[in-house]
Amino acid sequence: MTFIINFQLKINTMKLWDKGLAIDKKIENFTVGNDRELDMHIAEYDLKASKAHARMLGKVDILTSEEVKNIEDELAKLHQQLENGTFQIEEDFEDVHSKIEFELTQTLGDTGKKIHTARSRNDQILVAMQLYFKENLKEISGKTKQLIDVLLGLAEKHQEKLLPGYTHLQVAMPSSFGLWFSAYAELLIDDLYLLEAGLKVVDQNPLGSAAGYGSSFPIDREFTTKELGFSTLKYNVVAAQLGRGKCERTVTSNISSVANTLARFSMDICLYMSQNFDFITFPDELTTGSSIMPHKKNPDVFELIRGKCNKLQSIANEMILITNNLPSGYHRDYQLIKENSIYAVENIKEILDIFIHSIALIKVKDINFKDEKYKYLFTVDSINDLVMQGKSFREAYQIIGDQVQEGTYEAAEGKRHSHLGSKDNLALAEIRRKKDEV
Amino acid sequence: MTFIINFQLKINTMKLWDKGLAIDKKIENFTVGNDRELDMHIAEYDLKASKAHARMLGKVDILTSEEVKNIEDELAKLHQQLENGTFQIEEDFEDVHSKIEFELTQTLGDTGKKIHTARSRNDQILVAMQLYFKENLKEISGKTKQLIDVLLGLAEKHQEKLLPGYTHLQVAMPSSFGLWFSAYAELLIDDLYLLEAGLKVVDQNPLGSAAGYGSSFPIDREFTTKELGFSTLKYNVVAAQLGRGKCERTVTSNISSVANTLARFSMDICLYMSQNFDFITFPDELTTGSSIMPHKKNPDVFELIRGKCNKLQSIANEMILITNNLPSGYHRDYQLIKENSIYAVENIKEILDIFIHSIALIKVKDINFKDEKYKYLFTVDSINDLVMQGKSFREAYQIIGDQVQEGTYEAAEGKRHSHLGSKDNLALAEIRRKKDEV
Amino acid sequence: MTFIINFQLKINTMKLWDKGLAIDKKIENFTVGNDRELDMHIAEYDLKASKAHARMLGKVDILTSEEVKNIEDELAKLHQQLENGTFQIEEDFEDVHSKIEFELTQTLGDTGKKIHTARSRNDQILVAMQLYFKENLKEISGKTKQLIDVLLGLAEKHQEKLLPGYTHLQVAMPSSFGLWFSAYAELLIDDLYLLEAGLKVVDQNPLGSAAGYGSSFPIDREFTTKELGFSTLKYNVVAAQLGRGKCERTVTSNISSVANTLARFSMDICLYMSQNFDFITFPDELTTGSSIMPHKKNPDVFELIRGKCNKLQSIANEMILITNNLPSGYHRDYQLIKENSIYAVENIKEILDIFIHSIALIKVKDINFKDEKYKYLFTVDSINDLVMQGKSFREAYQIIGDQVQEGTYEAAEGKRHSHLGSKDNLALAEIRRKKDEV
Amino acid sequence: MTFIINFQLKINTMKLWDKGLAIDKKIENFTVGNDRELDMHIAEYDLKASKAHARMLGKVDILTSEEVKNIEDELAKLHQQLENGTFQIEEDFEDVHSKIEFELTQTLGDTGKKIHTARSRNDQILVAMQLYFKENLKEISGKTKQLIDVLLGLAEKHQEKLLPGYTHLQVAMPSSFGLWFSAYAELLIDDLYLLEAGLKVVDQNPLGSAAGYGSSFPIDREFTTKELGFSTLKYNVVAAQLGRGKCERTVTSNISSVANTLARFSMDICLYMSQNFDFITFPDELTTGSSIMPHKKNPDVFELIRGKCNKLQSIANEMILITNNLPSGYHRDYQLIKENSIYAVENIKEILDIFIHSIALIKVKDINFKDEKYKYLFTVDSINDLVMQGKSFREAYQIIGDQVQEGTYEAAEGKRHSHLGSKDNLALAEIRRKKDEV
Repeated sequence: MTFIINFQLKINTMKLWDKGLAIDKKIENFTVGNDRELDMHIAEYDLKASKAHARMLGKVDILTSEEVKNIEDELAKLHQQLENGTFQIEEDFEDVHSKIEFELTQTLGDTGKKIHTARSRNDQILVAMQLYFKENLKEISGKTKQLIDVLLGLAEKHQEKLLPGYTHLQVAMPSSFGLWFSAYAELLIDDLYLLEAGLKVVDQNPLGSAAGYGSSFPIDREFTTKELGFSTLKYNVVAAQLGRGKCERTVTSNISSVANTLARFSMDICLYMSQNFDFITFPDELTTGSSIMPHKKNPDVFELIRGKCNKLQSIANEMILITNNLPSGYHRDYQLIKENSIYAVENIKEILDIFIHSIALIKVKDINFKDEKYKYLFTVDSINDLVMQGKSFREAYQIIGDQVQEGTYEAAEGKRHSHLGSKDNLALAEIRRKKDEV
Repeated sequence: MTFIINFQLKINTMKLWDKGLAIDKKIENFTVGNDRELDMHIAEYDLKASKAHARMLGKVDILTSEEVKNIEDELAKLHQQLENGTFQIEEDFEDVHSKIEFELTQTLGDTGKKIHTARSRNDQILVAMQLYFKENLKEISGKTKQLIDVLLGLAEKHQEKLLPGYTHLQVAMPSSFGLWFSAYAELLIDDLYLLEAGLKVVDQNPLGSAAGYGSSFPIDREFTTKELGFSTLKYNVVAAQLGRGKCERTVTSNISSVANTLARFSMDICLYMSQNFDFITFPDELTTGSSIMPHKKNPDVFELIRGKCNKLQSIANEMILITNNLPSGYHRDYQLIKENSIYAVENIKEILDIFIHSIALIKVKDINFKDEKYKYLFTVDSINDLVMQGKSFREAYQIIGDQVQEGTYEAAEGKRHSHLGSKDNLALAEIRRKKDEV
Repeated sequence: MTFIINFQLKINTMKLWDKGLAIDKKIENFTVGNDRELDMHIAEYDLKASKAHARMLGKVDILTSEEVKNIEDELAKLHQQLENGTFQIEEDFEDVHSKIEFELTQTLGDTGKKIHTARSRNDQILVAMQLYFKENLKEISGKTKQLIDVLLGLAEKHQEKLLPGYTHLQVAMPSSFGLWFSAYAELLIDDLYLLEAGLKVVDQNPLGSAAGYGSSFPIDREFTTKELGFSTLKYNVVAAQLGRGKCERTVTSNISSVANTLARFSMDICLYMSQNFDFITFPDELTTGSSIMPHKKNPDVFELIRGKCNKLQSIANEMILITNNLPSGYHRDYQLIKENSIYAVENIKEILDIFIHSIALIKVKDINFKDEKYKYLFTVDSINDLVMQGKSFREAYQIIGDQVQEGTYEAAEGKRHSHLGSKDNLALAEIRRKKDEV
Repeated sequence: MTFIINFQLKINTMKLWDKGLAIDKKIENFTVGNDRELDMHIAEYDLKASKAHARMLGKVDILTSEEVKNIEDELAKLHQQLENGTFQIEEDFEDVHSKIEFELTQTLGDTGKKIHTARSRNDQILVAMQLYFKENLKEISGKTKQLIDVLLGLAEKHQEKLLPGYTHLQVAMPSSFGLWFSAYAELLIDDLYLLEAGLKVVDQNPLGSAAGYGSSFPIDREFTTKELGFSTLKYNVVAAQLGRGKCERTVTSNISSVANTLARFSMDICLYMSQNFDFITFPDELTTGSSIMPHKKNPDVFELIRGKCNKLQSIANEMILITNNLPSGYHRDYQLIKENSIYAVENIKEILDIFIHSIALIKVKDINFKDEKYKYLFTVDSINDLVMQGKSFREAYQIIGDQVQEGTYEAAEGKRHSHLGSKDNLALAEIRRKKDEV
């Protein structure tokens, strides 16, 4: 189950501070923050981890098998509410954890409380967040692979269509739409490597670290590790606690890498849609226009992708700033890293969805290579031709240089490039294989 | 009128993307973002600027005086709704500007539309944001001054109480609570200088720049400048448009400076509350504790202030990342700098309120300077005494050094420091005057 | 006197760590860092502050008038060496302060040592850095004003030349070279406001704060304040110490603002030099080209300005990261903020010099507004004309829209914009006045 | 072969700009920057890649076998110079590439020039930088593993020694030196995952991409890939060029992750050395002290590690800022990302060396757990004991709570924690195995 996030501001039209709200209420608002809303994203994972913890407590005889069963049943009911969309974290609770604890205690009495044995709010959040990141990193990798496939498809479709290649924003060498699309596909594979590394970082069970120093209960951490499908444990309980912050920095930094690739791609798209390039266009639903300027196609969707991706690239630095220079052990500051790490996860998924949908609708235009500005695009190919025919580079350069100066140069437009990864040998199969091997 | 912001996530419990939401709806959500909620913060300023613009159009005979009056009346009604808390931006509108336009047109027909003459959405947002920043920078400065006063009061109250001074986190020299409180007071004056500079940057009327290139209408920009109380114009229309981004970078960077001061102060507070320092404490409503660890006073409020302030320090970088390397002229990306610049403004106000309230409740504890660890805190004063009595520094150092080695050193605890700005001559009046002169 | 900085890496071709360098030598290298080189930038200011401190010690009878005279003479000699370019910080010294102390003691014996009375390395560095920043902020402001003048001159010269105005990188509205040049001039005035605020922050005498807690000597801090030309004192000695970091953050952040303006201007320049825009060009010495691609003019100088300015925008964040969450009092980490704050200062000066020289050489090209892509650039002006003639906006829009659809639209190229700050009313005098008033 | 980097400022004591240096010289200085010095780090890799390229040109018959042999011999000579420490990049050359080209042409004439066939400065730098990063990421991983081993050794040695565990900087639960040392060991394994991902990103041959669009020569890129030991190709030539920036961002971001771990560890160390904690100490060569304050041990080395690591964490953001929003294709700005990416690589190696050396010298002190401030450190263990004896948590909590209130509570200091990863079951073997599996 997935939620679409919509970050927004809740406006209270009353000026709380001035108009009679008791100071303790103001401080409560300040300290609770937006946990209730954020926690909807991790509710599912808290339920799972609670179930695993309860079963483990049963295994080590801290809970009876009946107590375990009762707790499992109750958690299953809450999970069902979540599936139905009826699960809510009411104003009375400061977060999802107190909500679930309340529900268990309400129905099961003392048994409900016992689930908190050998567990603390700290490792409860750690395990829920890491499960959330794990699930979502996989989803983000999946969407990234999907986008790679779309781009490789576009590269194949448009492989014969030339595109001017620029260096220093100056017309320089022949490129192609095939090269352009598949370049970003191959770059996204690098991002997959980073997402994989992030997955390894979060895929280590922190449950059992309690408040950051473990406990004197004889718990079985290998049991919960297996139960929750973690690849391994974060063994050391202090390391598990220090993982708060490290996981968020890692995940947001890796997401930032995907975002960087998409932002740069979007910059190309916005530029190529300018009348001064006029290389591509998109259907009306992805642009805004004007009936008095019918040539105008504002690339709003790609501008927003670019902007949102640039925004995502600032988040890892926020994570560092919040956690920097704090001595080991829990600090309340950590509450604040939840918001934008969840924001990064939810946004990159939405951006990838929109990108996949939109890029597939791209229309490649015919470029007039006879235009004066593209006149010398093929001079390097012409020189290389002469070199391959036996001329020294110096001679060849002289000959073409003279033609250019005398105005007799004729562009060798049809010249094919044969080497691996060049415009006429795109290595799409190899790129696809590289992606499949991640 | 002021709103308390509560940044939160709106959760849609339905998986929008997968479950049948039409693609154009998804793209609409992606492009509209959270403008409706954010815009509640600038509604007031859009109404003001619209009124000024209408009056100016009347002055240059583009609107009749009756048309102007009708528009003014309608805007006044909307302003009243805002005051009453009944103003809403319904789902049908993508932002406050379209909402207000709708209301005017609904009631006034074509007259309502005419207010958009010689104006574009671009300068409409620019002027509203700049008015919002202007008003709020003044408010932030005011609260900062209030905090300075509280700190100077605390410094005066506790001026006689010694505090160990640390370098490299090592016990080093005698300091005092008076010095500590008033140090942060004086640092906040530096932040006032930056807030003042920010005020100058935003206090320049951009209205009339239209879509960033002005218009062929004979508008009177000096009239609206005066009407809106701006100190001057951003004359050049291209500069006015480029101000989008510059204003946000400047304001968030200046707020970040205040945040840095408060974050560092909070770090001191959290450290000094540790049992290993035990210099200060706070009443229970500002801390969390434990009945089995009665010594434990978790400084949650100051940890959250520290974390939130560290978070605020990351926002200027976000503003740079979004606007960086974009050629001049409007881009849709600019929509995205609204969110966190408003977030920074609203949060620093809340943080200042909480800080002012909380720091006033601080309890200064008695420090046992006889404790072994503070033994050599006064050795430098002892040496200086000998120097002032005529010994060379080398001799004096030798004498005290020998006493220390032999274990005969006696701390000169009572030594007073007389120079301006030192622990026994706090210069509180001078600092207060400096603040008043900003 | 000024030094041109050239940041570089010193390469030791021997692998120090592995090949026998004693561990204590390695640790010394690690701790000394590059202070010797950096300190050449602040040597002048350390000499000035040392002189003021000596004179003050004389005034309060800690030094005799003869001792003061001897110290002054010796400092004058060192200053002369600095002027001559013969002053060096040899490998034996870890920084400029130990070098100067050595020279004084070498010549004056015990008198040389006495200058260190009531002073510590901490406030010695603080005062030298603040004097360095103060002097340089003024120089940076001066160069910025010089650039503003050049740009206003270019605006005046090219005020009649049209330029297409873009929104979303789409051809949108008529702009002009006059608007373009003077837009950046006016934006730079905002940067002046920030530089002024930075000046206020550093223009407060920290000398006398010693190791951060003042001293028991009866020093006269107002005397050194006057002597050194500071506007005021940083009274509180703890605040003075906390100024380390705050000054660097503030100065680099303000420089970053200038850098942002120049980076964005450079992006425009690089884009406008592309063959696909072809609006401007520069003489060969500022570009690199190719004889086989004679149209190619790589804008290397402006690309490097853009890149260097983007680099400068990252430094304030570095300053925050190094100092963040450190409790009050000196920490050795502060040594590390010297490098890039000096780097920022020296680089922005060099960039401003290069920018002033280079922009003056710009050649504005003739743009063919008859080209298809600029066809609808004037439609908004045409509509406004009809509105001014009495048509409603709706009618006017309909008429021009129909012409566009039918292909009968004729561009109203000659239309002049009259309002203040628009393309035909540049307000250059007002902008110049605004600059002069900073 | 390795170089130790020493970043420093070259000071020209002549004010270049003002005193007669021709403007073209100033611009040359501005554009060349510090490439000569930086390039000493990549000289070795340029020689290797040049050799591979020459051999490939031989294989595809663009060079004769004799030409290849001559080039190989000449490159071997230069490599020998590099080994000897006699290789220099003189002032006449702007970088290592022009230096090597000059040497080849000097000796071999036209043959020397031919090596540039089917290659451009762009892919020459790309391949040299990627080889440099690859080699160094392996070295950094190696040093990180070495540090992990040292820490696991310390954990084993001190596993029986208790340490107070803090939450919110408040004394909370029993921890141990064993937990503390091995926590950072296990965290560093996460950093290894990221370094591995970085290795994958750079371990893809970009050679053959020429100026970013490949060439019309029939080159064999698989041959050079094998020759240079790359795992695979960056197939797409446009992707290879876009790798400039991506590699630097990735490598510096991954290094930043190691730096974060070390910075946080150093913060603990500096805090624990404070007299107010007094948990650890170091021998004199790693600290600075004072004979009049014999208790003072300033942890300079660890403060500098912390500061340098915090500085390293700012570099990835610099890389983003320089490359952000630039359209695809080479820009001169990329020259500027070389400096700080090399800085990051060289510094983290030095920091790791110093850290490994220094941490091994740590002295663990005896902590007096009878001190009042640690009185309630064991209350949670006491409650858990009662729970394990069959009391409900509520009852157990009540009993211990009452004892605490009545002052009869006796700390259960000896209580052992048995679960995996807790203080008495450190899982060192498992952590070691996890490390070995990276």
